[in-house]
Amino acid sequence: MDGGEVRVSGRASQQRRAAAIRDELAAVIATEVKDPRVHAAGLVGVSRVELNRDGSAARVYVSFVSTEDGPRAEALEGLAAASGFLRSTLGRRLGIGRAPKLTFDWDPTAEVAERLAAVVAEDAMTPFDRAVDVIRRADTILLATHRGPDGDGVGSMVALASLLRSQGKTPTLFTEDLVPRNLKWLPFARSFVRTLAADARFDATIVVDCGDPQLLGPGFPAPEVTGTVVALDHHASHRPFGDVFVSDPDAACVGVLVARIARRLGWRISKEAAQGLFVSLVADTGSFSYSNANAEAFHLAAELVGAGYVDPWAIHERMNENVPVSRYRLLAAALGTLELAADGRLAFLQITEQMLADVKASWEDSEGVVNYARGIAGVECGVLLTPAKGGGVRVSMRSKGRAIDAGAVCARLGGGGHRGAAGCTLPGDLPTARRVVEDALVAALEGAVPSAE
Amino acid sequence: MDGGEVRVSGRASQQRRAAAIRDELAAVIATEVKDPRVHAAGLVGVSRVELNRDGSAARVYVSFVSTEDGPRAEALEGLAAASGFLRSTLGRRLGIGRAPKLTFDWDPTAEVAERLAAVVAEDAMTPFDRAVDVIRRADTILLATHRGPDGDGVGSMVALASLLRSQGKTPTLFTEDLVPRNLKWLPFARSFVRTLAADARFDATIVVDCGDPQLLGPGFPAPEVTGTVVALDHHASHRPFGDVFVSDPDAACVGVLVARIARRLGWRISKEAAQGLFVSLVADTGSFSYSNANAEAFHLAAELVGAGYVDPWAIHERMNENVPVSRYRLLAAALGTLELAADGRLAFLQITEQMLADVKASWEDSEGVVNYARGIAGVECGVLLTPAKGGGVRVSMRSKGRAIDAGAVCARLGGGGHRGAAGCTLPGDLPTARRVVEDALVAALEGAVPSAE
Repeated sequence: MDGGEVRVSGRASQQRRAAAIRDELAAVIATEVKDPRVHAAGLVGVSRVELNRDGSAARVYVSFVSTEDGPRAEALEGLAAASGFLRSTLGRRLGIGRAPKLTFDWDPTAEVAERLAAVVAEDAMTPFDRAVDVIRRADTILLATHRGPDGDGVGSMVALASLLRSQGKTPTLFTEDLVPRNLKWLPFARSFVRTLAADARFDATIVVDCGDPQLLGPGFPAPEVTGTVVALDHHASHRPFGDVFVSDPDAACVGVLVARIARRLGWRISKEAAQGLFVSLVADTGSFSYSNANAEAFHLAAELVGAGYVDPWAIHERMNENVPVSRYRLLAAALGTLELAADGRLAFLQITEQMLADVKASWEDSEGVVNYARGIAGVECGVLLTPAKGGGVRVSMRSKGRAIDAGAVCARLGGGGHRGAAGCTLPGDLPTARRVVEDALVAALEGAVPSAE
Repeated sequence: MDGGEVRVSGRASQQRRAAAIRDELAAVIATEVKDPRVHAAGLVGVSRVELNRDGSAARVYVSFVSTEDGPRAEALEGLAAASGFLRSTLGRRLGIGRAPKLTFDWDPTAEVAERLAAVVAEDAMTPFDRAVDVIRRADTILLATHRGPDGDGVGSMVALASLLRSQGKTPTLFTEDLVPRNLKWLPFARSFVRTLAADARFDATIVVDCGDPQLLGPGFPAPEVTGTVVALDHHASHRPFGDVFVSDPDAACVGVLVARIARRLGWRISKEAAQGLFVSLVADTGSFSYSNANAEAFHLAAELVGAGYVDPWAIHERMNENVPVSRYRLLAAALGTLELAADGRLAFLQITEQMLADVKASWEDSEGVVNYARGIAGVECGVLLTPAKGGGVRVSMRSKGRAIDAGAVCARLGGGGHRGAAGCTLPGDLPTARRVVEDALVAALEGAVPSAE
C-alpha cells in the first residue's frame, strides 16, 4: 500500500522534511493531545525526528523535565496510543498525503537543562523557549506590568504568582499604581507592593502585557535588582526590551502565554491561577466578544471552567457588576450630550468638569463611556471629548473597524492606537477640538486617510 | 501485571459493569475523540460491550449511519489508535483503576435504522436518541420557537435549517412574530414565514427553546400539519409537550443541543450553521458571562471560531452594536429615575409612557435597562417598573443570585422566573407597585422568602 508513496529525495530535503515534522508534531502534541500521561512528565518538546529512506516511518525523540522513569514511560505509552491520530493530523497539516508511521522514544542524549543550554548556544531557541528556561531556573521572581495595570496585566501576574509559588519559588508582585477596584478580590491582590526594599535582588523579572519600556514607569527597578528580564507581550506593534522579549499578537491575552508556559513546564494550573487567567481572558477579549477571541482563548476558557475552577458569572459580576452609582449618573449626563454627524456615521459625546462635579463622579467613572458612542446603529466611529489634564482636549476614539481606522486618524492628529481604539490630545477648547476631529473623520470616511495596518 | 486486578464477580455485576463502560465510552468518544475518521462514518453509538471473565479485556461494538465499508473501517482504525487514551480516560472516569484493554468492532447485527427501531420497542432509547431518529428520517421539517423569538430560538432555527438543507431535506422556518432587528442579518432570516399554506403538511416539527406549550402562540399548527413534534429545550422548569421532549438544563443554549445532534448524525457544521450556533451561544450565555457558560459551551465556541466560520466581533457588533439612538436617550432618562433602597441593596428604575414619548422611543428600547439597576456596587437586586399593557405595573427583577431569589419573590407576587431573572404584574400605579415590591424584597433580604431552587 505504501509502495506508491516512496519518494526519491536528497539528504537535504529529507532533513528539511524531518524538521518540518518535528515542528508540527511539537505544536500538535502541545495543543491537541489531551492525554494527561503525555504531559505529566513535563514534556519539553520534540528534540529530533529521524526519517527512514522512503519517508514511510519516523522515529520521534522527545525530552522531558521529569528525570523519573515511570512518568517518562507512561508519557511514551500515551504518545504511542495517540500515534494514529498524530499521523493523520500531521499528514493533513503538512499536506503530504500519507505521513510517516510514528514511533516515539525518549531522548537520552542530554539532561534537559544541558540540552536547552546547548540549543541556546546554537541560537536555535525561540524567545518562548528561552523565557521558559529562565522561569524554570529562577527562584526569586519579580512580577510587573505596565503603568495603570488592567485585567490582563493583573490577571496574568496573579496566575504567575500562583504557579510559581506552587513550584516552591518566591514571587513578588510589583505595581507603582493601585490594583483596579474591580480586581481587588483576586487572589494575591493584597500582596501587590508599590515599592521594593533597597537591597531587594531577584533572579528574574517577568513583565507582562507591556510592549514598550516607556510604559514601565519611573519606579521600575534597575538591572542589578531585576535579574534577567523576561517580557511577555501580545501587542501587534511594540518596542522590544529586556533580555528575552516574547511577543505573540495571536495570543488573545498574556494569560494565554502564561498557560502555554505552564503547559510546557508540566505545571498544574491551580484554582487561584485559573481565576487570574480567566480575568485576563475576559478583560482583553471584551468577555469573548472581540475578534482576538480565537480557538485557543475559548479552549483555555473551557479548560478552566471544565476543571470547576471558574464560574464565569462570579468573575463577571465582580469585574463588571460593581458599578458605583456615580458612574451611571455620569453616563446619563454624557448620553445627554450625544450628537450625530456625517449623516449619522459619527457620534460625539462630551464630559466636562462641571458634569463630573454635578454627579460627584471621578474621571475613573468615564471609562467605557466612549463605547456607547460607537454602539449606535449606523455609526462607524464614536468619539468622547474630555478636558486633558495638562490643558487642551483629550480625544478617545472607537471605530467599528470597517470604514475608519481610528489609529491612523489619531496618528495624523499626533496620537496613536489600533484600528478599533485610539486617542490623541488636541489644543484649544471642546468646540474647537470637536471641529478638528470631525474634519479628520469625515476625511477618513471619504477615503483620504489610508489604513495604517 | 494484571493478575492483581482480577475480580471474582457474578454475571449480573459483570453486565452492570459492561453497561457502565458502554455508556461512559459513548460519552467520551462523542466529546473527546477528535479524530475525524471516527466521526466521518456517522458513528451512532456504542451498541454493546462484552467483557472477558476477569474484566481485563473488552470487545466494544459500535454502529454507524454509513453503510459503506471504507469509512467504517477507517473509523475502527481511528478508534484503535485512540484506544490507549480511551482506556485511561475510562479508568479515571469510572474510578476502577485499570480499565479493560479495548478492542473495537463494527456491530453487524442490524442496520442502524432497524436497530434504533428495535431499541424503541425496548423503551431503552433516551428522548435525545428518539429526537435524532425522527430528524434523521424526516424530509419536510417545520422549525418553530416560542412567541417573541430571541437569539437562542432564532439562532438554533437557522443552524437547523442550514444543517437540514445540507442533507437534502426541506426546512420551513416559522414564527408568528418578527425576527428581532439585531438578528435580521443571519442566514435564512428573510426566509421566516408568519403563516403556513392551508394544505401544508410536514413529516416533523422541531420546536426549539420552548419548555411550555402555552408559549407557542395561537398560530402554532395542528397535529395533522406538524407531523411528529420534537421539542428541544434547556429550561430547568418546564411542562413537556409534543411527541419527543428533549430537556437538558445543563445545555447552555439550544444551539448546544443542535450541535450534539449534528455530531451524533455525523453532519458537518456549515459556516451558515456556525453563525446560528454562535448567536445562540452569545444570546443565552450573555456573551459567555453567565454561570451556564460551561466547558461544552466554550468548546463549541472554540470549534466554530477555530474552523474560521465565526468572527466573534462581527457577530457581537451585529447583535449588540446596532443600538438605535432612541434606546440610549431612553437609558439616560431611565437612569435619571435611579433610587436606592434597603441601605443600597436594592435599586429601582422606572420608565413611563411620558418618558417614552419624550425621546421618541418604543418599548423594545427598554430591553436590558433593568440590568443597569442590578449592576450597581452593593446592590443585590435591581428592579425596573413600567406600565403594563392591560393596566397595572410590569415588574422586571434581576438579582445577583446571592441574597435574593428573584424567581421566588416574583412567584409570591403572582409571577415567576429564575433565581437571577424574574417578573410579575401588579395592580395599581407605579408608586403603589414600588412599595409592594420593596416590601417583598426587604422580606427576602431578611430571609423570609426561601429559595425555590
